[in-house]
Amino acid sequence: MSAPSRVSAATRPDPEAGQATYDLDRAHVFHSWSAQDKISPLPVAGGENATFWDFEGNEYLDFNSQMVNLNLGHQHPKLVQAIQEQAGKLATIAPSFANDTRSEAARLIAGVAPEGMNHVFFTNGGAEAVENAVRMARIHAGRDKVMAAYRSYHGATATAITLTGEPRRFNNRHTDGGVVHFQGPYTYQSPFWSENEEQESERALEHLERQIVLEGAHTIAAIIMEPVVGGMGVIVPPVGYLKGLKEICDKYGILFIADEVMVGFGRCGTWFTFENFDVTPDLITFAKGSNSGYVPLGGVVISDKIHDTFAEKPFPGGLTYSGHPLACAPVVATFEVFEEENILERVRDLGERVVRPRLEELREKHAIVGDVRGLGLFWAIELVKDKETREPLVPYNPSGDQMTPMNEFAAACKKAGLWPYIGMNRTHIAPPLTISEEDLLRGLDIIDEALGGIGGYAG
Amino acid sequence: MSAPSRVSAATRPDPEAGQATYDLDRAHVFHSWSAQDKISPLPVAGGENATFWDFEGNEYLDFNSQMVNLNLGHQHPKLVQAIQEQAGKLATIAPSFANDTRSEAARLIAGVAPEGMNHVFFTNGGAEAVENAVRMARIHAGRDKVMAAYRSYHGATATAITLTGEPRRFNNRHTDGGVVHFQGPYTYQSPFWSENEEQESERALEHLERQIVLEGAHTIAAIIMEPVVGGMGVIVPPVGYLKGLKEICDKYGILFIADEVMVGFGRCGTWFTFENFDVTPDLITFAKGSNSGYVPLGGVVISDKIHDTFAEKPFPGGLTYSGHPLACAPVVATFEVFEEENILERVRDLGERVVRPRLEELREKHAIVGDVRGLGLFWAIELVKDKETREPLVPYNPSGDQMTPMNEFAAACKKAGLWPYIGMNRTHIAPPLTISEEDLLRGLDIIDEALGGIGGYAG
Ligand SMILES: Cc1ncc(COP(=O)(O)O)c(C=O)c1O
Ligand SMILES: Cc1ncc(COP(=O)(O)O)c(C=O)c1O
Repeated sequence: MSAPSRVSAATRPDPEAGQATYDLDRAHVFHSWSAQDKISPLPVAGGENATFWDFEGNEYLDFNSQMVNLNLGHQHPKLVQAIQEQAGKLATIAPSFANDTRSEAARLIAGVAPEGMNHVFFTNGGAEAVENAVRMARIHAGRDKVMAAYRSYHGATATAITLTGEPRRFNNRHTDGGVVHFQGPYTYQSPFWSENEEQESERALEHLERQIVLEGAHTIAAIIMEPVVGGMGVIVPPVGYLKGLKEICDKYGILFIADEVMVGFGRCGTWFTFENFDVTPDLITFAKGSNSGYVPLGGVVISDKIHDTFAEKPFPGGLTYSGHPLACAPVVATFEVFEEENILERVRDLGERVVRPRLEELREKHAIVGDVRGLGLFWAIELVKDKETREPLVPYNPSGDQMTPMNEFAAACKKAGLWPYIGMNRTHIAPPLTISEEDLLRGLDIIDEALGGIGGYAG
Repeated sequence: MSAPSRVSAATRPDPEAGQATYDLDRAHVFHSWSAQDKISPLPVAGGENATFWDFEGNEYLDFNSQMVNLNLGHQHPKLVQAIQEQAGKLATIAPSFANDTRSEAARLIAGVAPEGMNHVFFTNGGAEAVENAVRMARIHAGRDKVMAAYRSYHGATATAITLTGEPRRFNNRHTDGGVVHFQGPYTYQSPFWSENEEQESERALEHLERQIVLEGAHTIAAIIMEPVVGGMGVIVPPVGYLKGLKEICDKYGILFIADEVMVGFGRCGTWFTFENFDVTPDLITFAKGSNSGYVPLGGVVISDKIHDTFAEKPFPGGLTYSGHPLACAPVVATFEVFEEENILERVRDLGERVVRPRLEELREKHAIVGDVRGLGLFWAIELVKDKETREPLVPYNPSGDQMTPMNEFAAACKKAGLWPYIGMNRTHIAPPLTISEEDLLRGLDIIDEALGGIGGYAG
């Protein structure tokens, strides 16, 4: 395993600036999801495409696209240019006006959404998108409850964090009393004692329908789900599940909200990930990949029937920066880049030709690798103590100590020049969609070697 | 009243582009707080400082700074440059890293906050700032309830819209069961039968303390309040009220959250508006003026004791774009501009020397003007049917029809080249802090004339 390469001479290392950045950060910046005295945030000096570097000159391959938002990589010239031009022209305008860049971004997004979904409500990020989709669904349906999967993340504002199923909600109030959680399919660790994907799909649907009846179907406004569960494990739904879920929704007059915040905009090789599963949602939430997070943006794509609920009656929601021109400019540029660089095809090709076989190799090679799964450029490697029992290498919601093997794995990756995502007993592969094939292979080699280093924790 | 002036030759009118912008907007953009088929958003082509213009070439003086966020006006060259440079350097980086621009923005904000408030948690806007301040307060206090004023706006995510007291919450669920509303002071329309400002302050405090006791003081985590109530009427608290409120808070171990989203960053002639009232909050929420809304940003300034609650124990909140470099760059530039252009002094001077006397003139002149009040460059003109009874010209939460006089007033202003803010029976004066004295006077003249036009509705 070679040491991290040095950055180009154009961005010379500047350890003093790095130290100043760090010191001010520790003195004045309060960090998300953290115990403030237990973190040492790495000062990042710059980045280009799938690589970023610190102030010492160490480079890292970014295998999580920051927070799975950097779909077109760092400093894509087209996105940078779009921002600079919009800043020079008109940085901001209130939502109540019309703006050419916003209009064009909405047109483009509606253009890749299913037929009959023609309007976009813009927000600043994913949580606000979820909040507003749920607001629309409740008012449209005239019902209060919203169902969400336990293995899910939907954001951290009050309704969004209540919808979230994973442990980050544990230390938050269950603020939104209308939220109900259900267990979704998870073929590798089936909660339904199923033996294969088909059975998992069937049983998960039966389980869901049973719970809907027990809750009172007529009290449920919507089900929200990530078409491929993201942060909680790149769980690709078994064949037929999402289609079946939508059929159940239709049977009971329940709306389906596809939360595409993480998987939308090419992550899985299509504009929206639900396209892979023969299903059309009533509302789509998006954020991250829509402009690679260069400027905060999120939104909701709205079906015509829900739009019409608010044709004559005011929609009771809003925010100061809805449809912010500076955030919409790199959305427009994103569509250009997707076309010019053939991003969707590239993602599908790299996923199937390069990533899948390499990960299957890793599963054969390492006793510790239980499952590999994914779609496009979004994959998980799930680590186990024992391939037979499938006992996870670390338990659900692990304590700090229990994370030791994963922390060792992460440290080995970083040392070798790769910045990995770690979630419980998993590492994910979610690089920028523009990563070179060479870098992708190099990153997978680093992961291979780092897995070898923690092989002793198996058994 | 002269017709709106034409824009400079540099930005030639382009009605076709305006029409295209409008058509695409109506086809694809879903607007905040609106019945979608009842709006006709004006396409805006450009702006400079306190003026913006449409595609026909009509110019408007912006007397609401968009949504009271454009504190340094449209296209301030320093802010534009800061964004362009940051975009070229490093547009985005995840919150878990350290970033030089973010560190510097946090340092500057902490530098103008009271002693003992050293950390900043960044969000994308005001609602998320409020959500996170409340989250911090509840966990720090180990209590659940949060009190907010009826005349208030705190944002539109689930907890924020529940905290909001004004009618925009009416068609939303009361999602956050821990929220309790109280009546704040409002000298001109006293809810406490008081006869002057002193009495209003005393009675409002007695009323509040009574309600706290009735709720169970030990169940209340925090009181959130806008130091000058913004959207609900530029209600400047009577002398002693905020100080007294904080004393009551301290007596019962309740935290005080100052919501400075609208009034922070110079609007009332000081960095934070609470500075005018001899009070130190435990948490400060901010957004809009911090970077004039050029890039979506908000945040919470955190007292050391609350920070320390999350020193060893993780803070259970976060968002993908916390501390976004592109949003922090114009914050840093804002501090430079405030110093170079002496903004705070300018605001205080224009407010007292220019605005106050002119508004007092209007009150003398027009039977319809009941009250004028404000601070810095933030003022309200409150319209009444009768100066004796103080009956509002339109009732609280008016229907569309009841708004006719206000709509006529707004139309007259627009025709004369001024874009006004209208809230129930009020118009506000909240231009960019960089507005020229000439434009400020011209705008006040337009308002004077437009008030004359609706004088017939009095009595
Ligand atoms: C599926 C999903 N929904 C919502 C969110 C929340 O987005 P944000 O962090 O922009 O609020 C996330 C963030 O990771 C997400 O992955
Ligand atoms: C006092 C106050 N708090 C919070 C907010 C919500 O801010 P945002 O619209 O950025 O979510 C506003 C917006 O006007 C506000 O005026």
